[in-house]
Amino acid sequence: MRYSQLFLPTVKENPSDAETISHQLMIRAGMIRKLTSGIYSYLPLGYRVLRKVMGIIREEMDRAGAQEVLMPVVQPAELWQESGRWELYGKELLRFKDRHERDYCLGPTHEEVITDLVRNEIKSYRQLPKNIYQIQTKFRDEIRPRFGVMRCREFIMKDGYSFDADEEAAEVTYGKMYRAYQTIFRRCGLNFLAVEADSGNIGGSFSHEFMVLAETGEDALVFCDRCHYGANLEKAEGKLPVEIKENETVLPIKEVHTPDRRTIEEVSTYLGVEPRKLLKTLIYDADGKAVFVLIRGDREVNEVKVRNYLNCVHLALADETMIASLTGAPRGFTGPVGLKGTFIADYSVKGMVNFVTGANREDYHFINTNLDRDFKVEAFADLCVVQKGDLCPHCENPLNFMRGIEVGHVFKLGTKYSKAMRAVYLDQKGEEKFMIMGCYGIGVDRTVAATIEQNHDDYGIIWPVSIAPFVVIITPVNVKDGALMDVAEELYRRLTASGIDVLFDDRDERAGVKFADADLIGIPLRITVGTKTMAEKRVEIRERKTGEVKFVGKEEVGAYIEEYIKDQMAV
Amino acid sequence: MRYSQLFLPTVKENPSDAETISHQLMIRAGMIRKLTSGIYSYLPLGYRVLRKVMGIIREEMDRAGAQEVLMPVVQPAELWQESGRWELYGKELLRFKDRHERDYCLGPTHEEVITDLVRNEIKSYRQLPKNIYQIQTKFRDEIRPRFGVMRCREFIMKDGYSFDADEEAAEVTYGKMYRAYQTIFRRCGLNFLAVEADSGNIGGSFSHEFMVLAETGEDALVFCDRCHYGANLEKAEGKLPVEIKENETVLPIKEVHTPDRRTIEEVSTYLGVEPRKLLKTLIYDADGKAVFVLIRGDREVNEVKVRNYLNCVHLALADETMIASLTGAPRGFTGPVGLKGTFIADYSVKGMVNFVTGANREDYHFINTNLDRDFKVEAFADLCVVQKGDLCPHCENPLNFMRGIEVGHVFKLGTKYSKAMRAVYLDQKGEEKFMIMGCYGIGVDRTVAATIEQNHDDYGIIWPVSIAPFVVIITPVNVKDGALMDVAEELYRRLTASGIDVLFDDRDERAGVKFADADLIGIPLRITVGTKTMAEKRVEIRERKTGEVKFVGKEEVGAYIEEYIKDQMAV
Repeated sequence: MRYSQLFLPTVKENPSDAETISHQLMIRAGMIRKLTSGIYSYLPLGYRVLRKVMGIIREEMDRAGAQEVLMPVVQPAELWQESGRWELYGKELLRFKDRHERDYCLGPTHEEVITDLVRNEIKSYRQLPKNIYQIQTKFRDEIRPRFGVMRCREFIMKDGYSFDADEEAAEVTYGKMYRAYQTIFRRCGLNFLAVEADSGNIGGSFSHEFMVLAETGEDALVFCDRCHYGANLEKAEGKLPVEIKENETVLPIKEVHTPDRRTIEEVSTYLGVEPRKLLKTLIYDADGKAVFVLIRGDREVNEVKVRNYLNCVHLALADETMIASLTGAPRGFTGPVGLKGTFIADYSVKGMVNFVTGANREDYHFINTNLDRDFKVEAFADLCVVQKGDLCPHCENPLNFMRGIEVGHVFKLGTKYSKAMRAVYLDQKGEEKFMIMGCYGIGVDRTVAATIEQNHDDYGIIWPVSIAPFVVIITPVNVKDGALMDVAEELYRRLTASGIDVLFDDRDERAGVKFADADLIGIPLRITVGTKTMAEKRVEIRERKTGEVKFVGKEEVGAYIEEYIKDQMAV
Repeated sequence: MRYSQLFLPTVKENPSDAETISHQLMIRAGMIRKLTSGIYSYLPLGYRVLRKVMGIIREEMDRAGAQEVLMPVVQPAELWQESGRWELYGKELLRFKDRHERDYCLGPTHEEVITDLVRNEIKSYRQLPKNIYQIQTKFRDEIRPRFGVMRCREFIMKDGYSFDADEEAAEVTYGKMYRAYQTIFRRCGLNFLAVEADSGNIGGSFSHEFMVLAETGEDALVFCDRCHYGANLEKAEGKLPVEIKENETVLPIKEVHTPDRRTIEEVSTYLGVEPRKLLKTLIYDADGKAVFVLIRGDREVNEVKVRNYLNCVHLALADETMIASLTGAPRGFTGPVGLKGTFIADYSVKGMVNFVTGANREDYHFINTNLDRDFKVEAFADLCVVQKGDLCPHCENPLNFMRGIEVGHVFKLGTKYSKAMRAVYLDQKGEEKFMIMGCYGIGVDRTVAATIEQNHDDYGIIWPVSIAPFVVIITPVNVKDGALMDVAEELYRRLTASGIDVLFDDRDERAGVKFADADLIGIPLRITVGTKTMAEKRVEIRERKTGEVKFVGKEEVGAYIEEYIKDQMAV
């Protein structure tokens, strides 16, 4: 491709509305342009990268035995009503009516459509397993789209769905997909981690997220260096660092005056005790029912864990009115003593002795409260956010904390959708069974953005060879020098003919401008054709990643580059 | 790919709701399934064909210098308001609001988005020309979707847009695209015709449609064998077959009683004159204004021509109320004599003498009406539908009539969108100029369906090699015969390894069932591995298209097939 013909508008300055590196660089390198909030067009350079990522995904999906289909963007409401998600899915599901006033939505995911398709066609165990995927445009009406294509509304997803006859077969399929994902992200040149994750509104029994490690990542992760346990912070389990033995004598409960002290910090300071000696009582509205969650004062509640424990759809902290009606006191003075209701406690509460709680009376707390004597807990559960110092739940090694960008997610769905939508088959004995499902997603745009977050410097993007829009850029330093241009043209023809993606910078610009653009758009190898090197029948080849410069004989350039590509693509 | 693993549900019976051959066969061959009215999912077999067509399109677009991008499905109303099409486009434009109550539509086409993108980035003649395309999901809310993917609501289109500095350059680009389209459809193995067409709601100065010839086609075409003039019937011009000399003496006009005779047929029979001696007067409501269109009794009005002549947006025949208020009489008795208004006449009216017209009085007509003496015509124009017997407008050869399926459409847009949306550039003199645009569409789904309409027999589809989902199907006649399966497996491995798309029918089914499925899904070559031929170290290769059978030595199969493919792909 000739640069002069390419629609590649690069930009010198960082766009004011771009907060993250990948967003800035995708705009500056002429990869994307914003059409409207959270909706982007891909320009030729960006689309080349996207297509390379899609190519890798296709190869690995096909290799793992999955089959490509294409399902519609526009989906009828009926299927979503059948699965129950028409009601449950929030405003991110963009709903609309057609000219006949029938209800539809833009597909944010395709569990309903694929389950409908498969239940209509598959009737026997002999037709299983089936593993089906697509690469397709999705829409989620994010309330606050941001970070460019990282959290946008319209995006491209590879979504795959598997149907197996039994749990064992489903595990095998899950494993295949898990390994295929590892290969895909490795081939894209990414440094990533697969971690346990919450299943969110997709549902199912368990799931893993594939996280590209980057400080700018939206997700917090924990990871154990010793046993390789890893999890999204939402899902992460941990052990408390030291088992605290509270060997104190149990003292009588006593109400104390704590004027206008509401927060853990205010009360602990005022009473001169550590936060860990306080009990936090949070009231939640869980699908309309009040639930009291208790946790030690120095820990935070993980609402995802609470939601999963309660198996509820809507979970929100109680408002002042609800608190007042349940406790008779304002926020900040709630405690379990004397209240009726469902109390569940985080494990951190176990073993607490003589602790401080709210007295359900304005400006008063109890001291020397004790479990069982002063109130009863219905159940203990893991409800807390893992924090620095906590230990691996498996091997008790201290956990590491990092940040990541979710680029893939594999779910063991089980029978969630096959039961709701009656996707059944007849087994060998002629008995009707529910199909066991899995689903597997890759955010294609996000993978591109995450690659940039992980591979850039002050000058621009540094593409891994496998997904670079072009592998080589040929830069003649002076397009008005005929002899020099002949050499450059010949090189361009020869490399292109041998199947290498070459960008030929034939623009009439200063070498400095060309070099800056080549760095910005991140082409792995830059071949400079200059007067001096030409006289020596050599060219200069500079590696974007390291800045290393080699001088290679004109005739050896092709072999050199092919070798370089082979080397870089080796996974 | 192993047939036993493939998600390929074939169907024996024709589905009751499928009217056309391609719709029936796409369902029966397990290529597509309907999700809801006018919205289909592509199953693996169908998607393989779709991807092959997309591959050919990409290759030819890239070769012609076009660059691939990806624009969004969801488009903001503002751009459509700017071009004026938010108001003009009918209900086929599916409009909706997002969670913030902002207006959007699902893109039926992308002139607005690309014009916005280009005007923001291109400022100078040095950045022109640019030729940009995408292959992407579109939505048109058809009032009555039908014929499967032929007239559906969600579909895949290749849409391209070109931007040139002047008319001359734009013509060059148009020619390049026209030729690329010819190559694309030729490579897809189609028998097609490029014809002049109306530009419809895309607009612009002229356009050509690429029509796959098929009796089931929705479009009527005319074509001249001598000079190769071809046009969509909507657009077609023609000369009247014989110049009729009406050398009659002009007689006095006279009102006659024609009780309850309203149609041309009724009046001509009643009065005993040929339909060509009657003048038809049609009243139209053109953007709210009444227009009288006159045409000879034996011809039909072409409303597309009327709309283009009047340059109006909404055109509809007047209803009874409007007719009564304008003529004082009911429908069937309208004539130009004595009425005030705009009269435009088709060329067929020229030279008519002593003709019959409605008298604008119930149950009465005039005979011996004459032009100029009895009423005046504002203008003559070509407003009629070309019919059998008409002559080529260029060489006066009799025109041929055929039917076709529109698979591609190239438009010379001129400055329609660049003016409305101010897409300007600075020319060499620093003067601001409007970019000259073209746009170029291919219906990808339709191309697949049209291929089937043109290539099938009673047993199923007959794929051209270039877009066949698999080129070869290997059919062992008995999967329980180990030795036979070893030969089949080896053949499968070898052919697949040499890059041929092979489907291996490893199902435990009777040979007859397998042969029927192979014919139905239309694989170009079927290799049968049977006991007898195996003993002779040969296999049977049957060509789907001709039914011809060859016996080929086991070792020569690869070479034979590669040769066959090369031969079939030669355009």
